[in-house]
Amino acid sequence: MKKSIGADAVLYPTPLTVVGTYDAMGKPNVITAAWVGLCCSNPPCVAVSLRKARHSYASIVERKAFTVNVPSERYVKEADYFGLVSGGNVDKFAATGLTAVRSELVEAPYVLEFPLVLECKLVHSIDLGVHTQFIGQIMDVKADEEVLTDGSVPDIYKLQPIVFAPRCHTYHGVGKYLGQAFSLGKQV
Amino acid sequence: MKKSIGADAVLYPTPLTVVGTYDAMGKPNVITAAWVGLCCSNPPCVAVSLRKARHSYASIVERKAFTVNVPSERYVKEADYFGLVSGGNVDKFAATGLTAVRSELVEAPYVLEFPLVLECKLVHSIDLGVHTQFIGQIMDVKADEEVLTDGSVPDIYKLQPIVFAPRCHTYHGVGKYLGQAFSLGKQV
Repeated sequence: MKKSIGADAVLYPTPLTVVGTYDAMGKPNVITAAWVGLCCSNPPCVAVSLRKARHSYASIVERKAFTVNVPSERYVKEADYFGLVSGGNVDKFAATGLTAVRSELVEAPYVLEFPLVLECKLVHSIDLGVHTQFIGQIMDVKADEEVLTDGSVPDIYKLQPIVFAPRCHTYHGVGKYLGQAFSLGKQV
Repeated sequence: MKKSIGADAVLYPTPLTVVGTYDAMGKPNVITAAWVGLCCSNPPCVAVSLRKARHSYASIVERKAFTVNVPSERYVKEADYFGLVSGGNVDKFAATGLTAVRSELVEAPYVLEFPLVLECKLVHSIDLGVHTQFIGQIMDVKADEEVLTDGSVPDIYKLQPIVFAPRCHTYHGVGKYLGQAFSLGKQV
């Protein structure tokens, strides 16, 4: 029996990501984001939603660029911290000891220690209400060599990305292998 | 050391969802979608991207409505199947034995057997290239009572949603609990 739990932003799983930007002073900043999703295969695009009050908001509007960084489980505390404080008054890289690397493709920094990064050029901004959705064209994806198999395929168990569960506000790892996409369905 | 793996739609984790629509003939249809993400908290919105060639595409444009259904692990084969065939020539509900339920809020069906459903009214369509992004305002969220804790919070371990890993094309369950959001970061 289905029960209404109200009109709310609830979806399982959502990705825990960290969005990297340069602010007006050129200071690298990062913010936690889970309202994130791939939205086009060609050109490859990813959508990231942020509240207008966020320090990163103006940075994306000004620089027309951002990175989407995927932290591994070991950095779950740092990733959560990036959403608790404002880059307006804290240097989040200094506070965590993580390393900002300047992208050579877009005007945004990425997090050296995180195993996967998408370098994005802003192509659309859509004001939806509390959040503005920024759509970025993915100019390149970079991954740590040690998480790759066959030289170019990120292995999800080596990468260890983090699942965020809205409403219960919990973080989780990735679990057991269930099967191969575009294949399992042939058994129906 | 980071290595370029090319400009591509790669993000971990992505959600495996099934989008429900009524076509021009009033036939309920479903399609697998992983290019999906929450994009606004208030009004609550979710973004779903589909290719124009898909049968579901015209249905969303015409009905201005869709549902986002979250299958549990036990339905991974059916969820994968929904992406392998076209609703133009197959009745996917009949083929899988799953049940289409008419939403009372929007002109779209949802999947009775899947534990979580978002009933959405189309508010924006953004043509991005191969994919069009449909942004739906979430009019209600419904969940199976047996996956709820405290009457209104979906328990991710009872719900058992599916993670899709792009590029390697694999499905996975949700793994171990890593901690509480908006809290873990205070330890930094």
